[in-house]
Amino acid sequence: MAHVAFLGTGVMGGPMAAHLLAAGHAVTVWNRTRAKAEAVLPAGAGGRVAASPADAARGAECIFLCVGDTPDVTAVLFGPDGVAGGLERNALVVDCTTIAPAAEVEHAAQITAAGGRYLDAPVTGGQKGAVEATLSFIIGGEGADLERARPFLQAMGKRIFHAGPVGSGQKLKMVNQLVCALHLVALCEALALTKALDLDTTQAHALLTSGAARSWALEIYGEKLLHDDFAPGFFLKWQAKDIRIATEAAHEMGIVLPGLDLTHERLQAAVRAGLGDEGVQALFKLYR
Amino acid sequence: MAHVAFLGTGVMGGPMAAHLLAAGHAVTVWNRTRAKAEAVLPAGAGGRVAASPADAARGAECIFLCVGDTPDVTAVLFGPDGVAGGLERNALVVDCTTIAPAAEVEHAAQITAAGGRYLDAPVTGGQKGAVEATLSFIIGGEGADLERARPFLQAMGKRIFHAGPVGSGQKLKMVNQLVCALHLVALCEALALTKALDLDTTQAHALLTSGAARSWALEIYGEKLLHDDFAPGFFLKWQAKDIRIATEAAHEMGIVLPGLDLTHERLQAAVRAGLGDEGVQALFKLYR
Repeated sequence: MAHVAFLGTGVMGGPMAAHLLAAGHAVTVWNRTRAKAEAVLPAGAGGRVAASPADAARGAECIFLCVGDTPDVTAVLFGPDGVAGGLERNALVVDCTTIAPAAEVEHAAQITAAGGRYLDAPVTGGQKGAVEATLSFIIGGEGADLERARPFLQAMGKRIFHAGPVGSGQKLKMVNQLVCALHLVALCEALALTKALDLDTTQAHALLTSGAARSWALEIYGEKLLHDDFAPGFFLKWQAKDIRIATEAAHEMGIVLPGLDLTHERLQAAVRAGLGDEGVQALFKLYR
Repeated sequence: MAHVAFLGTGVMGGPMAAHLLAAGHAVTVWNRTRAKAEAVLPAGAGGRVAASPADAARGAECIFLCVGDTPDVTAVLFGPDGVAGGLERNALVVDCTTIAPAAEVEHAAQITAAGGRYLDAPVTGGQKGAVEATLSFIIGGEGADLERARPFLQAMGKRIFHAGPVGSGQKLKMVNQLVCALHLVALCEALALTKALDLDTTQAHALLTSGAARSWALEIYGEKLLHDDFAPGFFLKWQAKDIRIATEAAHEMGIVLPGLDLTHERLQAAVRAGLGDEGVQALFKLYR
């Protein structure tokens, strides 16, 4: 079995790292808040908590990241005690964070210069997918590197999409997030309209999930909203960040996507309203 | 078996009337374009094509409507040779068209005054649901009237939601249509962004339908868009009409739903661009 590192063991990364451990790999975990890394390794499960990303990288043939935003990835890779400081010759870095495609191209160039290999590998499927190992991985990078990562990815997810060269995984993830964000707006406005019309919300949820209005967002987040459950499966601030990246990309390319712009405006408004550390479904609070 | 009438045998009404016929009922059909009514009744299948809505109503204990917009329903019911002219005592009128809730309240009052009963019963599930008899019916009206209609509805669909008094079916349908329209915008913008990023559209479709971006719209209409298939399963002009009704209702209630407003703007732009008689997925042409 292989020696791998997992950096960032939050809502997504925690269960992902646990699947690698369960598959029998020697897993070194690191998290900014150490207690979250320790929680991945129950007594007797094996594995090790590293003191820093550099420490985690030492001896690892594959290093997974699942952190927050672009500056977090850059800091974990190249900051003080970053991955680059402990990188083994030919080690493969796999970034599962959702960040800007151009930043991944830059990260890949620096890791390659340091003697390593790089894939961007954002995921979709939510916390549920991470816990149940049913995530989809969206890969940017070279085919040979993907083949090295494949056994690890298969322990954490169900489907693997090779979108193209480094950065392409993040590009295709943008498309995915655009859809997720608009579905979230649809859910929130549907609930607001249902309440304004004085209709039964449980019945409305049953109807909407039975026909042409059906979506993953309506099923999963709709169910949470029925019970006023705003706990984070996916943090609203990360959805806002993902959409900021997609909006910037669309504007740079000069394409007009008013639905995307609307989700950007709504999610930024939600962050300004202090909802960033709640689950994405807390967007509904803007409509109350 | 019962004697029923079906008025409006288009993309939705045609297969719905055929299911009533197949269930063994004596079905009288009428359509503005007579050939479409005749097409529902293959040789030897029984049934009869009526000369007018009044003619169809004569002898029928239950009269279904599935026409276009509010003025069409009003004309078929109360215009020259309308249903009211042939209505049997205690006959039940069931309007499956999607129109404004207030109009249904008015229609119900007039039909009741003429000695009949009334339900609003808009559907969801699309052409596919009509053909496969898997529609969901959203009912506004009294429970006893719904029980009279139930055996017929069960021949044409799978689920029945009783939303409340007359008009409530249309109210809940508004919520459904808001969601469908935002999902349609999500699909179109996702495809536009995929193309702008020079990614593979077939792969993007496979990804989006595999995870948290999943929706009925993406599966069904996304598949059509992959093959440049703009044929109407659901006419764009009717989606635009449904959203116009929902937008008017939201504005009247003074609630702010920017996602709904956006779908209204997009769909009206598509109608102005001459796309009304294509399928809803032709909204994508606004993004090319």
